Amino acid sequence: MNTSLEIAKKLLDIGAVKLNFVNPFTWTSGLRSPIYCDNRKTLSFPDLRTLITIAYIKEIKQKFPETEVIAGVATAGIAQGALVAAGLNLPYCYVRPEPKNHGMKNQIEGFLEAGKKVVLIEDLISTGLSSLRAVDAVRETAEVLAVLSIFTYSLPSAELAFKNANCICISLTNLDILSKIAIENNYLSQDYLDNFIKWSKNPAKWSEDFLATATL
Amino acid sequence: MNTSLEIAKKLLDIGAVKLNFVNPFTWTSGLRSPIYCDNRKTLSFPDLRTLITIAYIKEIKQKFPETEVIAGVATAGIAQGALVAAGLNLPYCYVRPEPKNHGMKNQIEGFLEAGKKVVLIEDLISTGLSSLRAVDAVRETAEVLAVLSIFTYSLPSAELAFKNANCICISLTNLDILSKIAIENNYLSQDYLDNFIKWSKNPAKWSEDFLATATL
Repeated sequence: MNTSLEIAKKLLDIGAVKLNFVNPFTWTSGLRSPIYCDNRKTLSFPDLRTLITIAYIKEIKQKFPETEVIAGVATAGIAQGALVAAGLNLPYCYVRPEPKNHGMKNQIEGFLEAGKKVVLIEDLISTGLSSLRAVDAVRETAEVLAVLSIFTYSLPSAELAFKNANCICISLTNLDILSKIAIENNYLSQDYLDNFIKWSKNPAKWSEDFLATATL
Repeated sequence: MNTSLEIAKKLLDIGAVKLNFVNPFTWTSGLRSPIYCDNRKTLSFPDLRTLITIAYIKEIKQKFPETEVIAGVATAGIAQGALVAAGLNLPYCYVRPEPKNHGMKNQIEGFLEAGKKVVLIEDLISTGLSSLRAVDAVRETAEVLAVLSIFTYSLPSAELAFKNANCICISLTNLDILSKIAIENNYLSQDYLDNFIKWSKNPAKWSEDFLATATL
């Protein structure tokens, strides 16, 4: 099994990713969604945690060998980011997506030398907006080579947002791969695949349609 | 040089700890203080970062070999906590000191199995109160063996707070060790040592006295 499939399967196995079409999850935004993802749960499983660290390191060595600093996106990306930095023996810092004027905290914690080439470690790409706020913060003093994440919902809006920001975003696994392995392992029935694809093309519309037809 | 001295010296060398008696720092609480500490800066120095990780692991192996889970105290303890967990190949989670009813976030991120023996990783012990809120959160479901931190201001109030909470707290280095190495390396003049000891016995009184005598 390749690493993308293996990570996707294990995200389902440990319940970091959950699927439910009958009683969809409610996201923080209020949208109803058939998928829920909490990749912080991977930290509690040493084998999966290490598999993810190694996969990140492989991507960076292959695609961004010029990387000088690793930065974690706060808070969910901080722990894996540190493991990646340690594995590569590179300086580390972490970045809060919130602008500096909110509260007393620094937006970048640790030292970030001006002009350094940075790879950001994120846990999940949903809309991509919080990652891109972290990218903006790093770009104030340094250069962003890419944002790497464990998983992406592969939403068209996120792809567009990264394209508009002229920022490379690579995920270790994604919605297509997850759908495939979910069907193979009975986490998703074939009947719901079309429904899932429909969601991934327009989550807001899916949520609206669900609420319109649901027996409340 | 022993590890406690070496860490203290490096905290001063990289500016994670700064001393200034002429123009003391203003803490978030509003207190004026001759010492400022931001151990997150250690993350950006791979050699020091690894020295700290190894020192934590040594403490845990020697004093708490029964440890089953490592928990980082959010946010400053998350990165080092992850490195310690990886080094020991143990499950990891992180704990927010804030009570659950503040906002949408979980107080414990990751899985924490009931009854497990947990060591918490903190970066700094100041009053100890935020660490102890994290201890309380872990104790709701699991057992806390100890809180480990990189540095402690060695304030009497913190020692008392940990004693009252019946919680072991061990720091890799502390104010006495830092004072010693700071004098040896000209970060602190001998003239200010008594002043520093006075501060460490009662920071609130020191701040009050400073403001009363300062030319504002």
